[in-house]
Amino acid sequence: MLETTIAAIRPPDESAMASARELHGRLTKPAGSLGALEELSVRLAGLAGACPPPLPEPAAVAIFAGDHGVHAQGVTPWPQEVTGQMIGNFLAGGAVVNAFARQAGASVTVVDVGVATPLPAQPAAETSGPVVLDPSTPRMVAASVRRGTRDLAVTAALTRDEARAAVQTGIRIADELIEAGAAILLTGDMGIGNTTPAAALIAAFTGADPLDATGRGTGVDDPTYARKVAVVRAALARHAPTPADPLGVLAAVGGLEHAALAGLILGAAARRTPVLLDGVIAVSAALAAAAFAPDAVSAMVAGHRSAEPGATVALRHLGLDPLIDLGLRLGEGTGALLALPVVTGAVRVLHEVATFDSAGVAEK
Amino acid sequence: MLETTIAAIRPPDESAMASARELHGRLTKPAGSLGALEELSVRLAGLAGACPPPLPEPAAVAIFAGDHGVHAQGVTPWPQEVTGQMIGNFLAGGAVVNAFARQAGASVTVVDVGVATPLPAQPAAETSGPVVLDPSTPRMVAASVRRGTRDLAVTAALTRDEARAAVQTGIRIADELIEAGAAILLTGDMGIGNTTPAAALIAAFTGADPLDATGRGTGVDDPTYARKVAVVRAALARHAPTPADPLGVLAAVGGLEHAALAGLILGAAARRTPVLLDGVIAVSAALAAAAFAPDAVSAMVAGHRSAEPGATVALRHLGLDPLIDLGLRLGEGTGALLALPVVTGAVRVLHEVATFDSAGVAEK
Repeated sequence: MLETTIAAIRPPDESAMASARELHGRLTKPAGSLGALEELSVRLAGLAGACPPPLPEPAAVAIFAGDHGVHAQGVTPWPQEVTGQMIGNFLAGGAVVNAFARQAGASVTVVDVGVATPLPAQPAAETSGPVVLDPSTPRMVAASVRRGTRDLAVTAALTRDEARAAVQTGIRIADELIEAGAAILLTGDMGIGNTTPAAALIAAFTGADPLDATGRGTGVDDPTYARKVAVVRAALARHAPTPADPLGVLAAVGGLEHAALAGLILGAAARRTPVLLDGVIAVSAALAAAAFAPDAVSAMVAGHRSAEPGATVALRHLGLDPLIDLGLRLGEGTGALLALPVVTGAVRVLHEVATFDSAGVAEK
Repeated sequence: MLETTIAAIRPPDESAMASARELHGRLTKPAGSLGALEELSVRLAGLAGACPPPLPEPAAVAIFAGDHGVHAQGVTPWPQEVTGQMIGNFLAGGAVVNAFARQAGASVTVVDVGVATPLPAQPAAETSGPVVLDPSTPRMVAASVRRGTRDLAVTAALTRDEARAAVQTGIRIADELIEAGAAILLTGDMGIGNTTPAAALIAAFTGADPLDATGRGTGVDDPTYARKVAVVRAALARHAPTPADPLGVLAAVGGLEHAALAGLILGAAARRTPVLLDGVIAVSAALAAAAFAPDAVSAMVAGHRSAEPGATVALRHLGLDPLIDLGLRLGEGTGALLALPVVTGAVRVLHEVATFDSAGVAEK
């Protein structure tokens, strides 16, 4: 499944991109006056192989949740139980991601790929049968690969088979959401301690020094930050992960939600559907997706620049410019949701704006 | 009317701001993790004098249109007729501002404060009677002060009475839109050549050198740009406008849409209603509003950073950080509309997100 998905990912359609550029020149606005929105709409035309590309509606957020053995190293002040408690909050609609999703009309799917603690009972939110995108009711998918990763400071976080299972879960979720009608996928994540594996992935895939790839996550103090950098540095030295083997990198120093997000991105790219990236967890997973399939980058839209320094390292490596830069460091998919109207607006221009000819407006 | 409006503008409510900061600390997210959105929501609580402040819905865009005598100096390659032609495009729903307003559910009001050419017949769009905010039908208001300004390179662009009439038109439009239910006003503008008076206003109010305050607008070539800077420099030398007399500055080197936008901002501030600023025309008008009433700044939200360098000079002077920075230089209100979901999201968090206590989530 992973191999067939990778094989299905193709380069963008240059002809659709040329059509979008040409159309931009005829619309009633000075050439280039929409700045980054113009190039974004051109990229999305190339991805869709059509000009205009489809409006990215409806949108679906997929929040992958997992826990981390490296929590034992004291890399975060938050108790591990919060991962599972926040799943309860997502399903009850009380988190920031829910507020932003309601505003954007996006559905929320929460996927347990590896939460350590027993999840709160959520019978009403459990679903079976065909997937329905319903912005008013968050949906839960039980797809646990194992109850949290092993401690990457001590051993490989995952076996290759576990990493593959998580990636394939992400691909399956992409398939289900797109089959259900989603025209854009938004990445979300939840996992206490998950900025540590994200930093290790970013350092492994980009070659950045762990000091530059590691940030303060939800707000750690100086001693904790120093410990976090040391853990990342030691893990890279111990496992010596190589970007040529992305599954091996994910297994050695990744997390289950990181691996699943890489799969989600690959699944979206294989179906020529855009995937709007959230913060540092998302872009660390995007590096893995790009290592599996370089052309997957053409399906990625960088939603925002996380306050985590590693996010900027990763975005630079991917060649992506983020749409929003407001110092967010929450995760959950919140930054991607804030950026969604910008993406929709960029595409809408190609659908709805009059040309100089049709509107009877003179050109310069 | 101008004086009573200025007198009604008060400082923000510190108690409501403190309540918003305190509430942010109890919501289910790491403290500070929403970055600039947190401080934005605190500012809006201070403006409203309530925590949470009202959601900024519905939103109303007011596009003020005018022409400019300085067009005769060759400061733009676009014919002056385009101002009136674009009004036709706005009323037909074919411009970028219309596409973005439809997406955001915002109404569009086009106000002729000084278009030089006869406007296209738009009987269906003309309205009388009470103002209704209808996102599906742009509305036209005829409020021409004169058919374009005089050439600021030769004489004062406006008399003081004309400038005052335009400012008061802006105040009246703010009053009408807020009475009709608008919870946030968005600034829009249309006027071929209007980045030249904007640059002159920015230089006059901030003391910036005309070279730093002047940009390439819709995309002028090197000789035109040099001419534009020279025109601004000569106008400042000729008229010697002083920020202590904002009406005098607007009259000497402003435009009718700039003056009306200053009035819109003052009117919104007097009614403690936020006003979301678009690009360089808006922020040049915001400088005038702040010169009339320094506390008006607390009603201003900077929607985006225009590609025009003068916009950054003005924002710095006002102490405002923009929400979006995507190289836009279109005007019309497009940058403000792109930022609107960010503002709404910032406020929505205070309304809808669960607290640690209520959600049963542990703290660090």
